[in-house]
Amino acid sequence: MPKIVDHNQRRREIVEVTWRFIAREGIEKLNLRDLAAAAGYANGGLKIYFPTKDAILAATFIYVAEATNTRITRSAGALEGLAAIEAFAHEVLPLDELRRDEARVAVHYWHLALGDPALAEANSQTMQGWRERLDVWLGQLLGPGHRDAAAARDSMINFLMGAQAGSVLDERANTVQSLLEQLEHHLASLQRLPKNADLSSTTEEKP
Amino acid sequence: MPKIVDHNQRRREIVEVTWRFIAREGIEKLNLRDLAAAAGYANGGLKIYFPTKDAILAATFIYVAEATNTRITRSAGALEGLAAIEAFAHEVLPLDELRRDEARVAVHYWHLALGDPALAEANSQTMQGWRERLDVWLGQLLGPGHRDAAAARDSMINFLMGAQAGSVLDERANTVQSLLEQLEHHLASLQRLPKNADLSSTTEEKP
Repeated sequence: MPKIVDHNQRRREIVEVTWRFIAREGIEKLNLRDLAAAAGYANGGLKIYFPTKDAILAATFIYVAEATNTRITRSAGALEGLAAIEAFAHEVLPLDELRRDEARVAVHYWHLALGDPALAEANSQTMQGWRERLDVWLGQLLGPGHRDAAAARDSMINFLMGAQAGSVLDERANTVQSLLEQLEHHLASLQRLPKNADLSSTTEEKP
Repeated sequence: MPKIVDHNQRRREIVEVTWRFIAREGIEKLNLRDLAAAAGYANGGLKIYFPTKDAILAATFIYVAEATNTRITRSAGALEGLAAIEAFAHEVLPLDELRRDEARVAVHYWHLALGDPALAEANSQTMQGWRERLDVWLGQLLGPGHRDAAAARDSMINFLMGAQAGSVLDERANTVQSLLEQLEHHLASLQRLPKNADLSSTTEEKP
C-alpha cells in the first residue's frame, strides 16, 4: 500500500532547493531538468507539484518573504517603536550570507515581476505587510497621526529595497559596517523628527 | 562611392531602439531578430555593431546612465548643497514616464549584473560617480569631514535605487506625490543633522 505523499511537504522541499539554486547560480541558469535532479526527482517529476517554472518561482519568492517575516516577528514582535524598527531592518538588510542570498532572490524576482502582474502583486502584498508593521512602530515612536509618518515609512522601505540591491551589486560600497551606519542614520533621523506636540504649536521652529 | 558609415552613430541608434524596447516589453522578450527589425536592419545585421546581445545590453545601460547623468549635470550643476541634492534626486526618482522607463531598465539590468561581473562593474562605476557628486554637495551642506556624511550619502543612493524598484513594481504605494514626500523627508533629515560645530563641543546634545 503506497504511503500517502504529503503534497505540501514535497512542494516546500522543491521550493527550498529552488531558492538556494537561484541565490547561488542566478535565475538565468534555472531549468526544470537540473532542478528536478537537485531535488531528487526524475526529469519531468516536478510537474505534479508545479505546472510551470514560473509557478515554482512565484512560490519561491513567497517562501523567502515568509521566512523573512517569520524572523521579523521573532526578533521585533516583543519590541516597540525605534527598537522594533531596528530589529525589523536587521532582518531585511543583507548583513550575512543568508540575507544576501535573500537579496539576490529579491533582485531576480523584481525583474520577473516587471513582466508578470501576478508576481508584482505578491511583492506588493509583502511590502504592504511591512508598511502595516512600520505604521504601528512609527505610531509608538512619533505619536498617532504624525504628519511625516507615511513618508518615513515608505522611504524606509525603499531604503531597505535599495540596500538589498546595492549590497549584492556593489558590495564594496555596501559593507556590513556601512549598511549598519546607513540604518543608524535613518533611525537617528526618526528620533530627530519634531514630535506632534511641537508641531501643534503655532510657532513651529524651522530646522 | 559608398558613404562613410558613422559606426558610433549606428551603435547609438541601435542602443536607443534597445532601451525603449526593454522599457516597454521587458528584457525577456528582447531578441536580436526583433531588435534588428525595429532598428531597420536585416536579420543578423546588428552583428557588425554588437557581437552579442549582452554587448548591446551593457551599452544600453551605459547609455541610460549617461542620459541620467547629463540631466543631473544640467539641473544640479549650478546649484550647491541641499538644492543640488534635491535636483539630483529629481533626475533619478521615477517622477515621469521617461524616468519610470529608466527605472525599469535599471531593475532588469541589476538582474543581469548579478550574473555578470562586467555589468556589475559598470553599475558600480555609475554609483561611484553619484557618490562623488553627493560628497561635494554634502560637504557644502554639512561642512567638511562631517561624521555622518558617508552614511547620509550611501543611504540616499540606496533610497533612490529602492525608489526606482518600488515605483515600477508597486506604483500604488509609490505615487509621484509619495516619492516627493519621501525625498522631502530625507532632505529635512539632512537639514536636522547636528553641524560640525555642535559635534565638536564636548557636551553633544542627545536627540
